[in-house]
Amino acid sequence: MTDRLASQLAFLTEVDQMKSIFRQSPLMDKSRRENDAEHSWHIALMALTLQEYAAADNVDIERVMKMALVHDLVEIYAGDTFAYDTVGYEDKLTREQASADRVFGLLPPDLGAEYRALWEEFDRMETPDAMYASAIDRFQPFFINTKTDGYTWVRHGGILVSQVFQRMEPVKTAIPALWEYVEQGIRDAVEKGYLHPDQ
Amino acid sequence: MTDRLASQLAFLTEVDQMKSIFRQSPLMDKSRRENDAEHSWHIALMALTLQEYAAADNVDIERVMKMALVHDLVEIYAGDTFAYDTVGYEDKLTREQASADRVFGLLPPDLGAEYRALWEEFDRMETPDAMYASAIDRFQPFFINTKTDGYTWVRHGGILVSQVFQRMEPVKTAIPALWEYVEQGIRDAVEKGYLHPDQ
Repeated sequence: MTDRLASQLAFLTEVDQMKSIFRQSPLMDKSRRENDAEHSWHIALMALTLQEYAAADNVDIERVMKMALVHDLVEIYAGDTFAYDTVGYEDKLTREQASADRVFGLLPPDLGAEYRALWEEFDRMETPDAMYASAIDRFQPFFINTKTDGYTWVRHGGILVSQVFQRMEPVKTAIPALWEYVEQGIRDAVEKGYLHPDQ
Repeated sequence: MTDRLASQLAFLTEVDQMKSIFRQSPLMDKSRRENDAEHSWHIALMALTLQEYAAADNVDIERVMKMALVHDLVEIYAGDTFAYDTVGYEDKLTREQASADRVFGLLPPDLGAEYRALWEEFDRMETPDAMYASAIDRFQPFFINTKTDGYTWVRHGGILVSQVFQRMEPVKTAIPALWEYVEQGIRDAVEKGYLHPDQ
């Protein structure tokens, strides 16, 4: 076996840990929280299934699926940071850069650089592909909340409508067809007391 | 919201059940068995990472990733059939066709037909894309066994070398660079008593 293949197999072994990194979102049946591997599969399939609604007309679904597959790999060493955890967000970038060095460093340099660039592009949310992929990544936990009586919102408590609107802003821009669903979901959540109106 | 979008969101809700369909393969840390969502993510990333080793020079990695994402959706209603369960394999096709009607039937007809065709192509293992995708799907649980002291082989017991060689045959054809790893893995498993020599 070549060193190159050995390093690819070492990477594919290490990433198995994604199956044990638990996110805030539950399964739709609320039996437990979902992990990064499940989430990555779900958003890849969601991006594929909803691609016709991308606002940009030049979204490359192959690149979007690749982003979905690799976008959370840095959490192997950095862990998951909850979207509304302001303290966790302070050092999120530093922790994730160090983690990226480790996980992408397992691969042959060309492949490691390609995956790392996809992750960085995803995180910056500037290109059409990254804007669409990130919007799907924001929509998926929101969607789960609307299907689970606001599970994450209720568990954490005290989350404001304005925080959710801010978090969902990329959805409005990149996938406007979903905006009606988002607005309705937020209205319902306020009515049921899962989210708090500002003031 | 249009009926079309509503049916796409209904599909993306239903597929959440993939996170609760457990396979025979464990996580690499042997803490529990992996589920279909995790497996689908793992083989999609594996297919992407190893694409340079595909024997065919015309593999379309976008189609391969799509196959990886949808290839196990029929297990939502049909369940997982263990590779060496000869009784389960007798009615596997019938169970899976009925399941395919249900799960792909949730989608708008054009999208349901596209996903179903990808699953059927994957299952037939005839086109270059399907041969490569299926070979990765066969290799992944084998790879896990080599990293977990033959976990599945030992748990089921009595699995013969010839059965594993037969199961791995598509790897030999579609990804010959992995064959040395497969042969070595089988030799090691026999030596340690995880697999039984024929006769």
